[in-house]
Amino acid sequence: MKNISILGVTGSIGTQALEVIKSDSENLNLYAISANTSYEKIIEIINVFHPKYVAVTEESTYIKVKEYCNSKANTAEVLYGMEGLNTIATLPEVDMVLTSVVGMIGLVPTLNAIKAKKDIALANKETLVVGGQLVIEEARKNNANIIPVDSEHGAIFQCLQGNKKSSVDKIIITASGGPFRGKVKEQLVNATYREALRHPKWNMGRKISIDSATLMNKGLEVIEAHWLFNMDYSDIEVVVHPQSIIHSMVQYVDGSVLAQLGVPDMKLPIQYAVNYPTRKASVIEKLDFSKIGSLTFEKPDLETFRCLKLAYDAGRTGGTMPTILNAANEVAVDLFLNEKIKFLGIADLIEECMMKFEYKKISYVEDILEADKSVREYIKNKFKV
Amino acid sequence: MKNISILGVTGSIGTQALEVIKSDSENLNLYAISANTSYEKIIEIINVFHPKYVAVTEESTYIKVKEYCNSKANTAEVLYGMEGLNTIATLPEVDMVLTSVVGMIGLVPTLNAIKAKKDIALANKETLVVGGQLVIEEARKNNANIIPVDSEHGAIFQCLQGNKKSSVDKIIITASGGPFRGKVKEQLVNATYREALRHPKWNMGRKISIDSATLMNKGLEVIEAHWLFNMDYSDIEVVVHPQSIIHSMVQYVDGSVLAQLGVPDMKLPIQYAVNYPTRKASVIEKLDFSKIGSLTFEKPDLETFRCLKLAYDAGRTGGTMPTILNAANEVAVDLFLNEKIKFLGIADLIEECMMKFEYKKISYVEDILEADKSVREYIKNKFKV
Repeated sequence: MKNISILGVTGSIGTQALEVIKSDSENLNLYAISANTSYEKIIEIINVFHPKYVAVTEESTYIKVKEYCNSKANTAEVLYGMEGLNTIATLPEVDMVLTSVVGMIGLVPTLNAIKAKKDIALANKETLVVGGQLVIEEARKNNANIIPVDSEHGAIFQCLQGNKKSSVDKIIITASGGPFRGKVKEQLVNATYREALRHPKWNMGRKISIDSATLMNKGLEVIEAHWLFNMDYSDIEVVVHPQSIIHSMVQYVDGSVLAQLGVPDMKLPIQYAVNYPTRKASVIEKLDFSKIGSLTFEKPDLETFRCLKLAYDAGRTGGTMPTILNAANEVAVDLFLNEKIKFLGIADLIEECMMKFEYKKISYVEDILEADKSVREYIKNKFKV
Repeated sequence: MKNISILGVTGSIGTQALEVIKSDSENLNLYAISANTSYEKIIEIINVFHPKYVAVTEESTYIKVKEYCNSKANTAEVLYGMEGLNTIATLPEVDMVLTSVVGMIGLVPTLNAIKAKKDIALANKETLVVGGQLVIEEARKNNANIIPVDSEHGAIFQCLQGNKKSSVDKIIITASGGPFRGKVKEQLVNATYREALRHPKWNMGRKISIDSATLMNKGLEVIEAHWLFNMDYSDIEVVVHPQSIIHSMVQYVDGSVLAQLGVPDMKLPIQYAVNYPTRKASVIEKLDFSKIGSLTFEKPDLETFRCLKLAYDAGRTGGTMPTILNAANEVAVDLFLNEKIKFLGIADLIEECMMKFEYKKISYVEDILEADKSVREYIKNKFKV
């Protein structure tokens, strides 16, 4: 039995991970969970899965969950805040930590889980984008596996199995192109957040949907791939593949390309990660090649989708620059969703921050948190939010 | 330095293997070769590669090659006939035998090479089609690797690396569809051998080009895959993929599909096989995803291309039935190339033989050779050739 702790259990990935765990309850056990404010969902999960620990990061929700559990004589121990998050990331009984919280909040508990020698199923982009260097160093030191939980890195991870790192020529990350694929800048001047949220292939949370529309999502994935697979940025290519059937590829030095394909369903990489190195019977429909029609490929338009280029730039610069990029993007997306800035303004704001803030070498996690904080404060002051 | 013996060095695969060896002369050494009648080519190879042994199966060519080598005080030892073929397949100095002869003649020397514990780079279809059971048994017993040298099985071989057999759901062999893809029976009544030889994607020998037009090539590959990867016939699927970019795929139980892609160039699987498990720098151009356009997939038309269905039937029946299928096909293709039968007559003749000859269990290689001989004699008598 594998005991799993899910950080961020009520989000899109967390919810789908629950389905995967439920489908294989003989082998997978939900041992601990964390959530923020979704009281009803938390209670439902407690009643269905009976986790031993529940960490709640938002205070009033914490109090309500704690009361509920006390009243029910429920066995779940309810913990509070970042401390609670760090506790459930490091419990001795836990075999694997699925980090599916959204944003910077994932970094520290994931680092702590690695230090506690847990295997990590990583669905939190920021952990590697901002903390890649520290995270990979700790993982090596502590012999902890990091198995990516997203379709792209999961695909690359699978395409690398049984091959040597030295024989890899480049990795090719596929991008659906998002809802604005094919559009040029002029057509996106007045793009609304409702249009941006309408992703053609994947059903995801709001932040990541906007990141897909700007291609920042792909940019963050490029930085993640750099750390996860120890690849130079010049050997990481993004190819637009609107059908989202090929989830990513690895090109080897001999010219051979391995690709991983599947229906666009996050349960596939989640299931792979939580069961690695074993593959379990499918919880999703399988590909039917006589029905998938044609698979096409295009170069990404870096003029229109500047966020992708900015991410490459930040990655190449290194140090805290990806933190600056990421913080600026998070706040900018929020401003866009609240109609404070326009769609194209997201890239403008990120670029402004990358110009304004100098990058620093990362020695401690505090270097990251500080860079992150300064950028957020700067933008919030600027927009008085 | 890896010493390689090539059986059938002057054919299409042999010639391309020479290019691969030449491109990596620090690691690969052509130690021995065999050929049939191509005197000029043999002499050229002797002068360029200086193999230690040369086996020639056709008598008058053997005499000429022997004379040449004597006159030149050349160091190559010239051997004759099947005995020569068996000798160069089993030389103690040889590390790997590339079997690229065409037809049944490959079976016995390959079996002998396996018994001599050589790794086999296998480009001869018949070895597995007719002798799969014996060959795989011997390979297991002698701990000899069999690495397929064709784009399809090479692709599957790569897609299986680092995964467990038990997690494979099915293998998906791609087919270009050949020059007659999309045509129905009525349109092929008067198809000529010149039309049939015009393969849209691959430049190959005449026999295999006709097999591509009838889809028998794919049928033989299904039987090979059955033996090579220990798969039930119901778990081997053929998908028509006209672009020949995806060379084949493996679907795992979790719904994940791994595919191997590359430009359609046989040097890719040859290079992979002779260097396995190492990958060497490319001798061919690499894929450019912004240029490959779209990849499409169709179900094969088993009504029109009956040879594919006959091959599945023969494989499922087992014993000597694939031998009967293969012998009938070889002679039928020859008759078609000599305009003695029509294109659709190839399948008719194979089916006739599969009905006429009873299959037998295979205990010895003689069972195969006898079944093969009976079918050939029957057809030759029937057509008085």
